[in-house]
Amino acid sequence: MSTIESRLADMGITIPEPSAPLAAYVGHVVHNGIVTVSGQLPLVGGALSQTGLCGAGVSVEEAAAAAQICAINILAQVKVACGGDLERIERCIRLGGFVASTPDFTDHPKVINGASEFMGAVLGEKGAHARAAVGVAALPLNASVEVEATFAIS
Amino acid sequence: MSTIESRLADMGITIPEPSAPLAAYVGHVVHNGIVTVSGQLPLVGGALSQTGLCGAGVSVEEAAAAAQICAINILAQVKVACGGDLERIERCIRLGGFVASTPDFTDHPKVINGASEFMGAVLGEKGAHARAAVGVAALPLNASVEVEATFAIS
Amino acid sequence: MSTIESRLADMGITIPEPSAPLAAYVGHVVHNGIVTVSGQLPLVGGALSQTGLCGAGVSVEEAAAAAQICAINILAQVKVACGGDLERIERCIRLGGFVASTPDFTDHPKVINGASEFMGAVLGEKGAHARAAVGVAALPLNASVEVEATFAIS
Repeated sequence: MSTIESRLADMGITIPEPSAPLAAYVGHVVHNGIVTVSGQLPLVGGALSQTGLCGAGVSVEEAAAAAQICAINILAQVKVACGGDLERIERCIRLGGFVASTPDFTDHPKVINGASEFMGAVLGEKGAHARAAVGVAALPLNASVEVEATFAIS
Repeated sequence: MSTIESRLADMGITIPEPSAPLAAYVGHVVHNGIVTVSGQLPLVGGALSQTGLCGAGVSVEEAAAAAQICAINILAQVKVACGGDLERIERCIRLGGFVASTPDFTDHPKVINGASEFMGAVLGEKGAHARAAVGVAALPLNASVEVEATFAIS
Repeated sequence: MSTIESRLADMGITIPEPSAPLAAYVGHVVHNGIVTVSGQLPLVGGALSQTGLCGAGVSVEEAAAAAQICAINILAQVKVACGGDLERIERCIRLGGFVASTPDFTDHPKVINGASEFMGAVLGEKGAHARAAVGVAALPLNASVEVEATFAIS
């Protein structure tokens, strides 16, 4: 078992089959060793694990847990891009985190940390990424979080 | 006539001259074969074809039509980047779709499909892209949709 | 003194040490000559220079000044990526500008011009970038503006 796969196993996390895009696009594109991953929602088995707005009923902890699920779904896309071998990941370059939030919510960094800390835990130094985290008015299907990503692979 | 141009002709679509940026930036940057296209608004002849928020008067259909216009304006930028020859497009890598929406609107994927389906129809397999679609509080000039893009060209 | 450093000196601007990320990520990633810079807030000496929403108490001028500070903080990251030599900048490829705004605010381009015009003034032709500017519901720490960036360096 590879290092990354064994870390995931230690965390009790199984990388799922990637979820189908909601629309007329694809889950990821590979070009010149760069994987561009579509915005991932906190889908588990086809259903959203968390809906609603931060600042209006959804706690930071709930939204951070949803962000980790987005990150797992990102890895599911990258795994396909790598032909199944996560050791081909060279770097998580960027995460773009969108948090559905009310205008008075300001803890977006803590929410997206649910994704960022997961990448660090699973990928080690290769998981140290640039990031933007912002609060948006609403997200597809009323999801609380959406995270997109860019990876370099060998 | 090239394949892409003939598809556009079949659709009755003319790629316009690219619209001037609203501010201190440029419509696109080419670096190492990657075209980064600035966020495009649904401008037709210099005027917005659709303003207002989804969930507050603008329908999914109206916003999706606006998203297609954003996509046409993206192609206008890419055409310039290609020196006029759209056959130099290797891949639409990513679309970033921003929908001006109220907090209770959740059909952002259907809106941005107006851009995604257009890319697929015009570019075929080269049009299969990664995507993020989110609902933002407001957009420049009260536009209903803004779409940015990344392309690879030869 | 290099051209870029002398322009900054003429403007009376000192590039600060980059601010520490708010969370589990890094300020920038360099891969194959591309610098991806994390979303920068208008932090000066660790404190936000501007908080609140455009359209609800924050003027275009105040927000544009905050956007310039975001741009200075972006250059601080790029300077580290360049080993201290800003002349290694080949191009500012893209700025992504997020403006915390109410749904009826529409002057996002003027706000993000605070960052765009700064890049043009400091970097000259190398500062001509692609851009997206959108209005988001809220930003980390109640910041009024956040700007992320992509640069090419030699």
